[in-house]
Amino acid sequence: MSARKAVGARVPRLDAHGKVTGRAVFGADFALPGMLHGKILRSTEPHARLVSIDVARAAALSGVRAVITARDVPEVRYGGALKDETAFATDRVRYVGQPVAAVAATTPEAAEAALAAIDVRYEPLPAVLDAEAAMAPGAPLVHEGWAGYAAIPLLHRDGNVCNRARIIAGDVERGFEEADRIFEHRFTTGMVHQGYTEPRAAVASWDTAGAVTVWSNTQLPFEVQNTLAEILQLPPSKIRVIVTAIGGGFGGKLRVGVEHFAAFLARRTGRPVKVMTSTEEELTAAYPRQGTIIDLKTAVTRDGRIVAKQGRIVFDTGAFAGSGPGVASVATLVLAGPYRIPNLFIEGYAVYTNKTNCGSYRAPSGPQANFACESQMDMIADTLGLDPLELRLRNIVHEGDEGPTGQVLTGVGLEECLRKAAAAIGWQERKPGPWRGKGLACGWWTTTGGSSGVYVKLHPDGSIALNTGAAEIGSAALTGAAQILADELGVDVADITIVAADTLATPFDFGAQGSRTTFAVGNACRIAAADLRAQLFRLAGAQLGVAEESLDLRDRHVVADGKRVALADLARLSNQAGGGLIAHGAFVAPPTPHDAKRVEAHVYPAFHSPSFHAHAVDLSVDPDTGDVTLHRYVVAQDVGRAINPTYIEGQIEGGVTQGLGQALSEEIVYRDGRVLNPNLTDYKMPTTLDVPPIESILVEHPSALGPHGAKGVGEPPNIEPPAAVANAIAVATGVRVTSLPITAEKIALALVDGVPERA
Amino acid sequence: MSARKAVGARVPRLDAHGKVTGRAVFGADFALPGMLHGKILRSTEPHARLVSIDVARAAALSGVRAVITARDVPEVRYGGALKDETAFATDRVRYVGQPVAAVAATTPEAAEAALAAIDVRYEPLPAVLDAEAAMAPGAPLVHEGWAGYAAIPLLHRDGNVCNRARIIAGDVERGFEEADRIFEHRFTTGMVHQGYTEPRAAVASWDTAGAVTVWSNTQLPFEVQNTLAEILQLPPSKIRVIVTAIGGGFGGKLRVGVEHFAAFLARRTGRPVKVMTSTEEELTAAYPRQGTIIDLKTAVTRDGRIVAKQGRIVFDTGAFAGSGPGVASVATLVLAGPYRIPNLFIEGYAVYTNKTNCGSYRAPSGPQANFACESQMDMIADTLGLDPLELRLRNIVHEGDEGPTGQVLTGVGLEECLRKAAAAIGWQERKPGPWRGKGLACGWWTTTGGSSGVYVKLHPDGSIALNTGAAEIGSAALTGAAQILADELGVDVADITIVAADTLATPFDFGAQGSRTTFAVGNACRIAAADLRAQLFRLAGAQLGVAEESLDLRDRHVVADGKRVALADLARLSNQAGGGLIAHGAFVAPPTPHDAKRVEAHVYPAFHSPSFHAHAVDLSVDPDTGDVTLHRYVVAQDVGRAINPTYIEGQIEGGVTQGLGQALSEEIVYRDGRVLNPNLTDYKMPTTLDVPPIESILVEHPSALGPHGAKGVGEPPNIEPPAAVANAIAVATGVRVTSLPITAEKIALALVDGVPERA
Repeated sequence: MSARKAVGARVPRLDAHGKVTGRAVFGADFALPGMLHGKILRSTEPHARLVSIDVARAAALSGVRAVITARDVPEVRYGGALKDETAFATDRVRYVGQPVAAVAATTPEAAEAALAAIDVRYEPLPAVLDAEAAMAPGAPLVHEGWAGYAAIPLLHRDGNVCNRARIIAGDVERGFEEADRIFEHRFTTGMVHQGYTEPRAAVASWDTAGAVTVWSNTQLPFEVQNTLAEILQLPPSKIRVIVTAIGGGFGGKLRVGVEHFAAFLARRTGRPVKVMTSTEEELTAAYPRQGTIIDLKTAVTRDGRIVAKQGRIVFDTGAFAGSGPGVASVATLVLAGPYRIPNLFIEGYAVYTNKTNCGSYRAPSGPQANFACESQMDMIADTLGLDPLELRLRNIVHEGDEGPTGQVLTGVGLEECLRKAAAAIGWQERKPGPWRGKGLACGWWTTTGGSSGVYVKLHPDGSIALNTGAAEIGSAALTGAAQILADELGVDVADITIVAADTLATPFDFGAQGSRTTFAVGNACRIAAADLRAQLFRLAGAQLGVAEESLDLRDRHVVADGKRVALADLARLSNQAGGGLIAHGAFVAPPTPHDAKRVEAHVYPAFHSPSFHAHAVDLSVDPDTGDVTLHRYVVAQDVGRAINPTYIEGQIEGGVTQGLGQALSEEIVYRDGRVLNPNLTDYKMPTTLDVPPIESILVEHPSALGPHGAKGVGEPPNIEPPAAVANAIAVATGVRVTSLPITAEKIALALVDGVPERA
Repeated sequence: MSARKAVGARVPRLDAHGKVTGRAVFGADFALPGMLHGKILRSTEPHARLVSIDVARAAALSGVRAVITARDVPEVRYGGALKDETAFATDRVRYVGQPVAAVAATTPEAAEAALAAIDVRYEPLPAVLDAEAAMAPGAPLVHEGWAGYAAIPLLHRDGNVCNRARIIAGDVERGFEEADRIFEHRFTTGMVHQGYTEPRAAVASWDTAGAVTVWSNTQLPFEVQNTLAEILQLPPSKIRVIVTAIGGGFGGKLRVGVEHFAAFLARRTGRPVKVMTSTEEELTAAYPRQGTIIDLKTAVTRDGRIVAKQGRIVFDTGAFAGSGPGVASVATLVLAGPYRIPNLFIEGYAVYTNKTNCGSYRAPSGPQANFACESQMDMIADTLGLDPLELRLRNIVHEGDEGPTGQVLTGVGLEECLRKAAAAIGWQERKPGPWRGKGLACGWWTTTGGSSGVYVKLHPDGSIALNTGAAEIGSAALTGAAQILADELGVDVADITIVAADTLATPFDFGAQGSRTTFAVGNACRIAAADLRAQLFRLAGAQLGVAEESLDLRDRHVVADGKRVALADLARLSNQAGGGLIAHGAFVAPPTPHDAKRVEAHVYPAFHSPSFHAHAVDLSVDPDTGDVTLHRYVVAQDVGRAINPTYIEGQIEGGVTQGLGQALSEEIVYRDGRVLNPNLTDYKMPTTLDVPPIESILVEHPSALGPHGAKGVGEPPNIEPPAAVANAIAVATGVRVTSLPITAEKIALALVDGVPERA
């Protein structure tokens, strides 16, 4: 192994230039000659029978090249774990925003005009608009035919419940009996949007052999390829997905959204077609984070040891299952928390309602479940008269402990995170003044598994080309993988050129999701590099007359005591007479061993290479308006090994900012099945002025499997802000708000009502 | 090994759809938003001092964005074996057509107007316009500073001679002394253009990080990448070359032609720039086949055994060396011919003149040298009173014989080719009537070596993606490679999707040249497939509970007695839990052993996996006009193994057609250093009406190294037509024309002059 120079260094990201200069071509920018513009007509009813669609007037308008509905596309139900979706509504509509028809026209304006000219008649049906009500016996069914839908076998389904995942450990009832105190609370959270700055956009173009190329700003080209194959009824090899630059994803660009409409319209018209969403579409018909209803019943001893925990988190997943079944599964691990609790009974429900189909948002279920778990920890501490930090320290997991589902935890840096975050925020002075308070929250999260393959080759100048199927979604995760590769091959990061995320030209990758990219692509790079090193040493050994074992790679040279040969020379040699130097590497994270008896209907039964983190915030509340001013924010995150501190800090700052929005202001507000705030004036994301200084403390307890010990770092910063903020507000004001977002209005009303924290 | 289905079958080519429907995007079609159009101002003098260039008026014209000259680009001399070229003429111009300045403008018309507004002043110098004169002592030097130019060490240079390559075997003088008869003849051939239907075209676009992407219809993306790196003074990794569809190349699109101008202009303007040649530029300033002067002195015994051969072929390579040094080297092997000759002294010269820089054209040197060799064989046979077929049969090489440079020949199908071609043309009746005759010629050719790498992966549907750095130049050679891969993996050829010829996304490849693509890429595919098979068998063995050794691949399944599992299932399994199934393979043809003492200054000292061929033609001559009517044409070609008979027949038909053009009508005519016929009216390529029925006979004497025994097939059909036609004309008319093209005018004049064949 050569000396590491890149891993751990603050090297500039490889995708920076194009993005800061505006030359990067995003999905929203991408265009082809002769391209048409597609638009989607969406349901105006939350639940209704679709009586008729008359497209004749629209089709006759100037510039309109195609108008299509369910009648014009294959009858297919598609989806991930559960196949309940159709491209267009067929006999009925199930949410306001559901696609009903699509048009392609020569200009976006002509397409808009065509939408307005389509005549749709609905016959309203009773709608299910509350997840808890949806679970009640006799509730109207969002999908009357749900039992007939194909699904992966492990799901537990029942009526509007599209999955119920459970963790059952020990005997929770006996735990309750043996405890000194039992705490029961309910928490609720609203639906929130990922807030990516670039709308979803795709361009589709068919060739005459019946294959289609789709340029999309998706996070998951291979997922889109496979889903399009289902929807279009084609073999995946007939579908090439090429990822453009991406203006933010955060889980909102995992699933097919606009690509299939672009493909349908392009096939119909014989021209390339672009489909791009509007802000209104984003806020009514995208894949937002699910609203939840969470009930927690936690039993503790007098001295603050948790002996039993019963929890239920209900996800309002909207009209289609989407990510819901998996999110309900992950949630139970977050809700149990990073604590040693002998008796657990935790349930996660994904429930259909007549709302938009929810999806995945950076640490899906994390902020909601952690908000409940960590709010309640403070509520328990306050009642027991314990310092909330102390209560956590008495219960948190340490090296070698078991997780909720029986996995043996290693690389556990939680105590260090808690102590460092507390120290940095000045925890000894939790309430520095009137209407001011500090809050703390901790948590854990998974590094998503799945496979990543890479091709690696030497350029003629001895620099390296890396082919990866993973997209760069703005996290600089591919720069991280390049850092790992650079050190393996004794080159600089700037010596690596990346081609990424093309289902034809690059190897399969499970995709830029779940904080996995640097981890998995980095590991694949190490495997490929080992092969390439061996080839280089074979060539260089012969050149230098030195045994291969004594060779090393450094500064773009193969070196051995005093002798060296440049990679550029070896590249030229091999191109001329060695077959070109290329290698491949494929990595898949192994399953995490756990106690299978403890889990039911779990898509993700354990946390792979888990990360641990603690957040702390210092804030003030205006007692008259309830307005919150954030003074400082501290994150201590166990990243295993900081491959690039700068971009991890960037992830922390971005994730915390999004978390603060969810904590304080963001919510997609529904009334009668309609979104009241589908615009960026009324949907309130934090601006730079709302965000306090954020301090990042990187803690390093290595993962056994991660490259150089690295763990996933992208999602965790999004998890704890709501709980930390809620806990600080409680300290500052003496009132506890148990529903997200904790708007100024809620605080002010709580203060007016004089609701004490322990009411 | 699974049963072969694709190899040997007439499967449709994978690139057919786009080409027959017009949807393929050729270099001439490729466009980017905001693109400018570049044009090149070219010298009007064959040799002159460049006194001044005034671009002020041009730069001020409407729509003009940049005007550049040598002053605006790095001072670099670049080139292959010899670095004598500059992007623009500097202190002097050396041929009519040499770039002097370039402009970029918003429209092609504005760019043309700008060219017309550039004021260039020349001071004429004495020009060298004849290659033989150029070699004479005291001849003006095309490059006075030639000795200071960098060159690969093996070249033998002297004044205007930029390489002299020799084969010296035995003792040619003693051979002459011992022989019964000695024949001395001179042959000449004209300069000819490759006649590709699409002009050279490239679009360059820079990013803000100082890297450039070039879309080009080049045959050699990696060669263009490396040459651009020299010219632009950048590391090759900063240059990405992506090959568009190509409308014919035939060796004319091997070298940088327009790419560097596009890159310069794009860098200067900050906009993408396209540069495309006109027909006039193609016929005055491209890379045509060199005209030659050939002297042959051949000694034979009374019974027709060749005992000694002395030959000299002089290539007029134009103002820069280009491919000349290598072509002069190859030529000696062709001139020696596929004959057992104990004493050889063969020289090839590449000589500078003040003409356009010549290049490579399908079997470079082949038609010229073979025309001399095989014309003389007939002249010798006639003098000896032998049947020309019989003379050849007495001298040709057989299995195990040595070639001219001492290589041991294997897979030698020459006798079979000669006998089959003769039989098919009806050789027993060589002169079926007055003014009608049949001619025969045979030859041999190399399969160019060099390295090819491939990446191979499974698509989710179990079909295969093949990444290759080789471009599909229209020969269907990549379909051939895909046939080989398909059989290795038990899939259909239609199950293979190809991504090709992108210096970033695909592995290094020596390129689509020298009849090597199916051979080398096919071999790389076999290596990659072996790896992929092993991975598939490991997965499938575990799935089926069967030993890996007993598994096979068939019909997109892994099979073992009665059990089977689909590749699609293995792909899904591996994508989820096996790291994705990917592999790589790299192949390089080993050097061909030969007697190094027999060669001097040889870039190509032996023929790798040589092919053998015989052509026969039946034609009539109009005694009044000299006009030739071709009745039938037969090719018997030893292809080693016919991977796809249909596309080999296509290669034969295309190559023969080009060869007939060179035989009868094509020539770039120079007078006083200026081309007299720079247009497609006066440069006469054969049309469909000029081409007789061509019959292909595929002979299979396998190459030991080729995939399934295949040899290179693309270039050979271009070699023998001039000789076969010349020999047939001699039989039909009794007069022998020894200069190409054998125009009707030359025949008619020979008949008027009454020049007898043995004059």
